[in-house]
This record gives sequence, structure tokens and C-alpha cells, in this order.
Amino acid sequence: MLEIADIIGIIAFSISGFIIGVRERLDLLGVILSAFLTALGGGIIRDVLADRTIFAFSNFLAGTLVLIVLVLGFYFKLHKFDVENKTIFVLSDAIGLSSFSISGAIVGINAGFNIYGVVFLALITAVGGGMLRDMLINKIPFILREKFYATISILIGVFLYIFGTNVEILILTLIMGVIIRLIAYKKNWQLPKI
Amino acid sequence: MLEIADIIGIIAFSISGFIIGVRERLDLLGVILSAFLTALGGGIIRDVLADRTIFAFSNFLAGTLVLIVLVLGFYFKLHKFDVENKTIFVLSDAIGLSSFSISGAIVGINAGFNIYGVVFLALITAVGGGMLRDMLINKIPFILREKFYATISILIGVFLYIFGTNVEILILTLIMGVIIRLIAYKKNWQLPKI
Amino acid sequence: MLEIADIIGIIAFSISGFIIGVRERLDLLGVILSAFLTALGGGIIRDVLADRTIFAFSNFLAGTLVLIVLVLGFYFKLHKFDVENKTIFVLSDAIGLSSFSISGAIVGINAGFNIYGVVFLALITAVGGGMLRDMLINKIPFILREKFYATISILIGVFLYIFGTNVEILILTLIMGVIIRLIAYKKNWQLPKI
Repeated sequence: MLEIADIIGIIAFSISGFIIGVRERLDLLGVILSAFLTALGGGIIRDVLADRTIFAFSNFLAGTLVLIVLVLGFYFKLHKFDVENKTIFVLSDAIGLSSFSISGAIVGINAGFNIYGVVFLALITAVGGGMLRDMLINKIPFILREKFYATISILIGVFLYIFGTNVEILILTLIMGVIIRLIAYKKNWQLPKI
Repeated sequence: MLEIADIIGIIAFSISGFIIGVRERLDLLGVILSAFLTALGGGIIRDVLADRTIFAFSNFLAGTLVLIVLVLGFYFKLHKFDVENKTIFVLSDAIGLSSFSISGAIVGINAGFNIYGVVFLALITAVGGGMLRDMLINKIPFILREKFYATISILIGVFLYIFGTNVEILILTLIMGVIIRLIAYKKNWQLPKI
Repeated sequence: MLEIADIIGIIAFSISGFIIGVRERLDLLGVILSAFLTALGGGIIRDVLADRTIFAFSNFLAGTLVLIVLVLGFYFKLHKFDVENKTIFVLSDAIGLSSFSISGAIVGINAGFNIYGVVFLALITAVGGGMLRDMLINKIPFILREKFYATISILIGVFLYIFGTNVEILILTLIMGVIIRLIAYKKNWQLPKI
């Protein structure tokens, strides 16, 4: 299940990383780096924190999926689409957020971390790629966290820590995470100021 | 002694992280993340560099202390205080700086690092949390390093590398570090331009 | 060969880190940190990712070379030179880029990483120090990646992954990397916009 969550997340985040790179008018390499870092960065940080073999560096599928998304994206001129009509972006980003939060939580639980560690791993797996991308690309304001972004990741971490990681719960979590993210985006939910 | 230095640092930095989050007018989640990252981030980086079990992910006390500070902070409306009167902030920040520098130096010495490693670990443990917070929150200018901030951390690393880590020296270092930081703040010490 | 590539990179990047620190009008500590982080940061991240003993924390030579460069730099008032005439900077930066990309690729290959891991390690070893410096110093726009900077690092990673790491290939790679970087700088090469 961990690998499945990872692979869904990698596909989804390489699409959103590609779109972000194009929207920011990066050059060719910039778009490629944006897709790779967004898709693989969070998992790399997660595996370092959990002292595991880095999935993206040992499994050939991970990077190759990003390459395939890039080739298809350029071929179908995904980047010429009206990017203001950002349905694809919001959807792929919501799926990536949800599945990487799940994958981070699973790794944290398997590593025997306490609830703080599990939640932190869920969060960093989901947002770490975007953070690395921003640091290396250095042109993109990190807008990811607005509108319940981090909140969903944290809720997933807490939820899985409490209810465990059997298959039904994971599928439910993935679907609920995506739906809540889309509603939050649509309704423009904000957290209360204190 | 390592755990004691860590715990003092966690309490102190969760207070200053809370105040920074409030001062930056972050939303509820932002303030919570600011406190957690400021308090735990440096130690997480330290433990990854020293290839240790991550303290904050294995010891339940660490994150719980941050939670308690947050609850008390909100309850006593610490954030409604005149934040320009920043005595609490400067004091808690000075204590956090000093105790985390000590904890980083101890971990580095125990790991058998050379002086560069010990000093780097003292520095990154003290400033790493603030760095992570700034990256994730992305609204806060990282003002920490001005006015002898990093200098004190480096001096503590060099001092402990030379004089060792028995209890008397650690207590002396903690107190001296806080005092120097407060004087530096008060007198507005600057390093020479070259 | 790994150590040689590392040491060449450390000397070269401590020179360019020193010059960047001076150019940014950092104070004394800022210049020292800029040299240390630029020279050692990439290797530290590389060793954490590859789960190796951190070279800079176990080998006394690494940090001492940075210190020597700093002392010589201040003594010969390297920082008073017309920094707009940036021949030294561009050359040392090109050498650092090339040798650290090689060292990252070697570590990745030795760790058994796939091509994505080897390329990522080449890239992060070359640019990671600059990234850490920017995060800690927080004054310097990270301009490193423009003009084929990252491209060269990635090409080195792919090249060594395919052709292996025997001595002749490494020397050829180092020289070619520096030459291409200098030509790219001179001719102001840009990557195509998409």
C-alpha cells in the first residue's frame, strides 16, 4: 500500500510540478527540475528522517514516471493550455497531497514514531517536494500552504495514527482527503485568525 | 544532561515560536506550526546529521511540551500582550539559543565529530528550527542571526569542544550564553564589517 | 579519487563563498559562514542522503582548508579587489561545480543508487552548499543556477553513471565541466524557453 500511495503521489505531483514550472515561465531545465523535485522531494526527506533506503533512488519506477509525465506533458502541450483554467492542477495537487500524506504517515507508523513524528512525516512528505522545488528554482512563491493545505496533511497523520493503516482506511482517507481539499479550494476556507 | 538541555530549549523556543507566529499574524495553524518547528526543528536536523534516533519522534515529552506551551499561551492570551514589549521573547529566545547550542555540541562530541562538526551541530541545532519555520511559514524574515546570535552558538560549540561536557561546565555555559546574548541585545553589539 | 574531487571542490567553493560573502557586504561572521557553508554544505547533504559518515565532520582537512582560504583571503585582501572583475570568482566557482558534481556522482554510484539518485546527488552536492548559505545568510539571491549551472551538474551525473568512474574519465569530466561552464558564462548561454 505504501508503494501504491507513493506512486499515485508521484504521478499527481509531477503533473502539478510541471504546471507550476510552466506557469512560472521557467526554462526547459527549470520545468524538468520543478516536476522532479515536486514529485520526489517529499519522499526523499521522509526516507532520510525515517532512516530508510530512499525510494526514489532505489526504485527505477519513481523517476521514470516523472519522465513519462514530462514527455506526455510536452507532447500534448499541456503547458499551452489555459493555465488559468486550473482544474487539472488543483485535482492533481489534491491527489498528491492526500496520497503523500498517507505515505508519510505509514512510514512514520512503521518506523515506530510517536504521534508528533507521524504527523510531521505526513506533512513533510506532502509539502517537502514543493519546498525543495522553491529553494532550488527560487522563483516561485510557495503558495501551497494556504487554504487548508497543511491542515489536511496533519489531519491525515492524526487519523492514521489513531485508526491504523489497513487497506479500507487508507482508501477512505485518500478519497476524503481529496474531497476535503477540493471543497476547501472551492469554498475558499480559511483558518481562524487568533 | 543532553535531555535536560533539550527540554529547556524546547520550552524556550516554543514560547518564542508562538510569539513570532502571533506577531506575524499567522492563522491558528501557522502559530501552531511556528511553535512546533521552532522548538523541534533544530533537534530533528541535529539527530539526522548525527545519525541518531530523532528525539522528538521517539520521546513523547518533546512535542507534548510544545502543546502545553501553546495551550497556556492561548489561555493566558500571551499573544494579546504588547508584543513590542518583548522581554519574554528575548529571554526565552536567549535561553533556547544557549541550551540548543549546548545540546548540539554534546551530540556532536558524542558522535566523535571533529571541531567543525561540533560547531556546525551547535549552530544548526540552535538556528535550524527557525530556518525550517521560515521555509514552511514563508512569511517571516529570518532575523535571528543578527546581533551575535550565531556567534554565541559558535562560541559555545568551540568552548565545549575544548573543555568537555561535565555538568559544571554545561551549567556555566548555559548561564554565560544567556547573559552574553542579553547584553548583546541590550547593547546592540555588531560584528565588524571587513 | 573521491577525496581528491572533494578537496578540490572545497578549496574552490570556499574561495567563491568568501567572495560572495564580501560582495554581499556581510559582517565578519557572515563571510566566514558563507565560505564554510558554500564549501562544506553540499557534501554534508550528499553524505546524509547516502547514509555515509559525514566527510567534513570526520576529516580534519576539510574545514581546515576553508580556514586557510579565509586567512589567506583576508591577509591578501582578496575582498578589496575589484569584485566586478570577477575572473577568480567565475573560475573557482566553475572548478567547484565540476568537482563537487563528480564527487556527488561517485558517492551515488558507490551507494548503488539508480540514475535519478546519481544525478540528484551530483546536483545537490554542487548546489547544496549555496542553498544552505542562502538560507542561513538570507541576504543573497541564489543566482547560481542561471546559465547552464545546474545543467552541467546533471550532465556530469548522467555521464559518469553511463561511463563509470575510472581515473581518466574523472579527469576528463572535471576539465570538460570547467571548460563548458566557462564557455557558457562567456557566451551567456541560455536554455530554451518552452
